[in-house]
Amino acid sequence: MTDALLGEPIDQIDLVELAGVVQAAALARAVSVATAESCTGGLIGHLLTEVAGSSAYYIGGAITYSDALKVASLAVPQETLANHGAVSAQVAVAMAEGARHAFHADVAVAVTGIAGPSGGSAAKPVGLTYVAVADAAGHDVTRYQWAGDRSHNKLATARAGLELLRRRLEG
Amino acid sequence: MTDALLGEPIDQIDLVELAGVVQAAALARAVSVATAESCTGGLIGHLLTEVAGSSAYYIGGAITYSDALKVASLAVPQETLANHGAVSAQVAVAMAEGARHAFHADVAVAVTGIAGPSGGSAAKPVGLTYVAVADAAGHDVTRYQWAGDRSHNKLATARAGLELLRRRLEG
Repeated sequence: MTDALLGEPIDQIDLVELAGVVQAAALARAVSVATAESCTGGLIGHLLTEVAGSSAYYIGGAITYSDALKVASLAVPQETLANHGAVSAQVAVAMAEGARHAFHADVAVAVTGIAGPSGGSAAKPVGLTYVAVADAAGHDVTRYQWAGDRSHNKLATARAGLELLRRRLEG
Repeated sequence: MTDALLGEPIDQIDLVELAGVVQAAALARAVSVATAESCTGGLIGHLLTEVAGSSAYYIGGAITYSDALKVASLAVPQETLANHGAVSAQVAVAMAEGARHAFHADVAVAVTGIAGPSGGSAAKPVGLTYVAVADAAGHDVTRYQWAGDRSHNKLATARAGLELLRRRLEG
């Protein structure tokens, strides 16, 4: 796990370009990809599907905005949610592993965070976000503390998710 | 069912404003909302969650880009997919009904279409899209034939989904 802070504006166009790099990496390795998104609410799936031909590797995924859907759609254990909270490294990893299994994907990326402006606490401030990726060999998870507004934090999280996915695919 | 054609540019900012109207309508009626997205790939969920406070009514949903996920996540019958094709009024309604049940939502909106540039046929050209909404009282479904590029067709579909949802909520 590493920390990162980000403040500069993020352009969706640049993220679509990054999604194109992800697509090329996935197609070159013939792997299928699924997504499990909480705080981004579907933004990562939207970006991946802006690229023509994405249906050749992107099978879809879940938008698990509520805890109930994290359990129902991704089989995140209630115990993990209760013990660590929805915004935690443990839940991010459980979401990624759960998406891989539930959707029969080779690789899955998952994000969970507090986009803001409300929902933060002293222990878990607005902007705190965990991004995880899982494949048959294991998983990676990274912690971020974004400093932007709701919209910026979503874009920053999507970018981090796409980057982690790209590195895992190319890695 | 009605047909509609759309060519003018669509701004995501305007769609976030529409998502705010949906949110106000859902909160006023205390109903929960789920999404089931094929061709938009998560764009509707992204737009809904651009509005602060969306977690008070939006529980999440599924991005069912592949047919396999339409069956696994939304219980769309294999027979419906085989008989009518993934881009059909029947599948759009089955996705909306399936999302309502699978995610225990009061209302669900579903979209399925051919964003392009490939994937079209004489019978089902690029831009053909079905948008459905379902609640305890029944469902609505609308057919569209968009004339834009991939990105435009996704935005037009998201706008149609948000509009259908708004009208159903405002009743």
